[in-house]
Amino acid sequence: MAEEKKIGITVKKKDDFSEWYTQLIEQAELADVRYGIKGFVVYREWAQVTIEKMYRSMMDALDRKGHMPLCFPTLIHEKNFELEAEHVEGFTPDVFWVTQAGSEKLNEKYALRPTSETAFYQMYSLWLRSHRDLPYKRYQRASVFRAEKTKGTRPFLRGREFHWIETHNAFATHEDAYKQVLEDMEITREVLGEEFAIPHIFFERPQWDKFPGAVSTFAADALMGSGKVLQLPSTHLLGENFSKPFNVTYVAENGEQKYCHLTCYGPAISRIYGAMIALHSDDKGLRVPFNMAPLQVVIVPIPKEGADNKAILKKAEKLSKDLGKKYSVKIDDRDEYTPGWKYNYYELKGVPMRIEVGPRDLENGTVIIARRDTGKKELTKDPDVVKVVDKIAGEYTENLLKQADEGFEKNIVHSKSVEEIKKALSENKIASAGFCSIGMDGAKCAEKIDLTGGEVRGKRMDKEEKPKGNCVSCDKPAKLIVYVAKSY
Amino acid sequence: MAEEKKIGITVKKKDDFSEWYTQLIEQAELADVRYGIKGFVVYREWAQVTIEKMYRSMMDALDRKGHMPLCFPTLIHEKNFELEAEHVEGFTPDVFWVTQAGSEKLNEKYALRPTSETAFYQMYSLWLRSHRDLPYKRYQRASVFRAEKTKGTRPFLRGREFHWIETHNAFATHEDAYKQVLEDMEITREVLGEEFAIPHIFFERPQWDKFPGAVSTFAADALMGSGKVLQLPSTHLLGENFSKPFNVTYVAENGEQKYCHLTCYGPAISRIYGAMIALHSDDKGLRVPFNMAPLQVVIVPIPKEGADNKAILKKAEKLSKDLGKKYSVKIDDRDEYTPGWKYNYYELKGVPMRIEVGPRDLENGTVIIARRDTGKKELTKDPDVVKVVDKIAGEYTENLLKQADEGFEKNIVHSKSVEEIKKALSENKIASAGFCSIGMDGAKCAEKIDLTGGEVRGKRMDKEEKPKGNCVSCDKPAKLIVYVAKSY
Repeated sequence: MAEEKKIGITVKKKDDFSEWYTQLIEQAELADVRYGIKGFVVYREWAQVTIEKMYRSMMDALDRKGHMPLCFPTLIHEKNFELEAEHVEGFTPDVFWVTQAGSEKLNEKYALRPTSETAFYQMYSLWLRSHRDLPYKRYQRASVFRAEKTKGTRPFLRGREFHWIETHNAFATHEDAYKQVLEDMEITREVLGEEFAIPHIFFERPQWDKFPGAVSTFAADALMGSGKVLQLPSTHLLGENFSKPFNVTYVAENGEQKYCHLTCYGPAISRIYGAMIALHSDDKGLRVPFNMAPLQVVIVPIPKEGADNKAILKKAEKLSKDLGKKYSVKIDDRDEYTPGWKYNYYELKGVPMRIEVGPRDLENGTVIIARRDTGKKELTKDPDVVKVVDKIAGEYTENLLKQADEGFEKNIVHSKSVEEIKKALSENKIASAGFCSIGMDGAKCAEKIDLTGGEVRGKRMDKEEKPKGNCVSCDKPAKLIVYVAKSY
Repeated sequence: MAEEKKIGITVKKKDDFSEWYTQLIEQAELADVRYGIKGFVVYREWAQVTIEKMYRSMMDALDRKGHMPLCFPTLIHEKNFELEAEHVEGFTPDVFWVTQAGSEKLNEKYALRPTSETAFYQMYSLWLRSHRDLPYKRYQRASVFRAEKTKGTRPFLRGREFHWIETHNAFATHEDAYKQVLEDMEITREVLGEEFAIPHIFFERPQWDKFPGAVSTFAADALMGSGKVLQLPSTHLLGENFSKPFNVTYVAENGEQKYCHLTCYGPAISRIYGAMIALHSDDKGLRVPFNMAPLQVVIVPIPKEGADNKAILKKAEKLSKDLGKKYSVKIDDRDEYTPGWKYNYYELKGVPMRIEVGPRDLENGTVIIARRDTGKKELTKDPDVVKVVDKIAGEYTENLLKQADEGFEKNIVHSKSVEEIKKALSENKIASAGFCSIGMDGAKCAEKIDLTGGEVRGKRMDKEEKPKGNCVSCDKPAKLIVYVAKSY
């Protein structure tokens, strides 16, 4: 037997989230940071299999809601990029530029897209003609690039290249565009909330924190194990801000030429993957929703000296064949590792179920099924195995969501003063508070709150909340409730 | 009724392939060349839906054969890029370079990957340790960038950014690596040959035409309507050429440290899409294999004055519901277009089946099913519709393949002299001929053949062929049969 590589995370998630995440990524072999260009990492197979599944989930949801895919070039001509003033100001400091082809310096510069509004809308200007072309709902799967020199990088959560989907939609009216924001919230709930089991709140962001060039920005925040929130998909009402400089117009039924109302939505799949694993994983290693797992069931035969090890393997193979019809299943019968090492290994790798088959199981017509969500082991009779696996498969993701949800709800504290906000944040919680305005007239009040180390994340979109009393920051009556949190 | 946009391709494929292809792309709205950066085009929805399906087919095939996905950065550090001498020489003239971030010039240059050997193998050097890690079979879905200043561009078939999959595999021995070449040929046959219905020949390329840095190159050529061949996926035996400079090693069972044998395979999905539509489409417009079609069945109600048009629509809706369980189906009941215009439109768009429902069909309990592969219309009784649609769906792709295959086989002419080769090529055919060698000692003979306007594409891999007589180019006895063709 070869010497077994030591595996396992050596710190606790609640004690040192940052180090725990770093070890999780390294030990479960999810990404490799040794690529040699700052902020650019390699996604390894165990992450990428899941990321592909997540892409399929999100693209299927967009298809169901009437979007179609497009594919734009990675490069954007500098002259397009510069057409919308706020947009160019917001993104230019972070743009990687291509200036050379072969040994020749180019006469023009091309941006590696940091986002694709300025690429899409020049074409929408050519494609959209009539009210009959609207609504026009399109998306692309793409990687985007942001140098973000002032921000630290972290695999999946923040990198200089990341992998997303961006939708770009055109509508006849503001009302239609706003309905799209609500649909984007619904898609987020279905895909992130249910399929990826990530509890989140969808906010309207304050005006001082909107996307460069947008009229308003809406975004989902997830509370991570560290007490910080992470912005997940955001969706933007662009109004006519881009359709004017890019001339995206349509002829209305009455013959009038009008500007389209544009929206965009940007679920960053690689970032959502980071959030998903940071949220669900534990001190033993990775945990992901059942349908997102690269391997769903591992079967570990437990050979013993003097036992009928061939029969044990044969039983494992029969199980594998039966379960393989519905699930991704593997037998690990390598003899260079002990069963105990394998248990740890597959827990680290986040395999939802492990089936142990030993000599006693052979005699008794049983197996042991161990589940990664609860850590429980269940002695199961052979004829019941498929039924039990089906049951666990059916409740596994919901169970992860429940565990994450408990952490979420009890971490929101309603606060009546800036001091109370500060206290809540120091306890790794989110604060809610009465506030005067998320328009630009509230910006001064937000600055006071920034001193707590948190940020005003905005007004929640999923329910109406009525404030009492005054703004937590000034003397004016509160007009809404905002949420304050530290963020990544 | 609005004025109907005139649609349709105005030249015949056999008369002017190049203009026909340009019109096909434009009229069926597959790509838009007006993006504003030379060689970079936008893939529109009708192409991209199919390209996504093609990606899934190819990735599923790779998964079945034991590969796993990875995801590498788009940028490659100049110092990696320069490690393998032939490789850097072959690709450097075509590389786009990132030299700037924000307003700052970078201290180092990053290549937009033209291919990813130099990215993958530095990491393989870190990841691969033992013979137990081998074979190691990985792939990524990615876009790649080649400036190729001397070559013209054409949507899908040749662009400065294209969308591919690249596999990078490591093996213990040359024999194992060579088996992978045969497996890659098998994957090509299954996916390109069967699912995309593209007849092709898999060749071992001559030594003077191999991938920069490879020991040998193998590639599939498809014969396009124009008489030219198009290189589709190629696979490369890299031997130890990259594992030495990148130090990709493993410890063998006997404890010896050895270099891995590497192979790579690069199905360029966007290019294969171009080949697929160029091959199957006709003077009426697009044709694609049934499972690759964005829309499989369109139902066109034919309203008439005085008829029960509501009942016609209701019948269409029932059909749509029944067929929608298995197929992608749409009803086009827009009243601004005539049924005749719609027939042309969906033929242009390559929808495999059209179902017409008119007043007479309502009376007789029938519909008309028109198929895009044969152009035939079939009067079908209501209870038989699903059965007939199933039948057409089942034979559609095979039928496209048969039509393309006939064109392929009769276009190969065995030639006994350089003059005969020249004649065959002038008739838009492929020539086969006895030849002395595809090693470097045959290069001089190949130069003589180049004067015909064709190129020696290599020795066919899918069957053994015994030559008779002498090399077509020199006096030495022929050792193999090669194929000569004009190429894109």
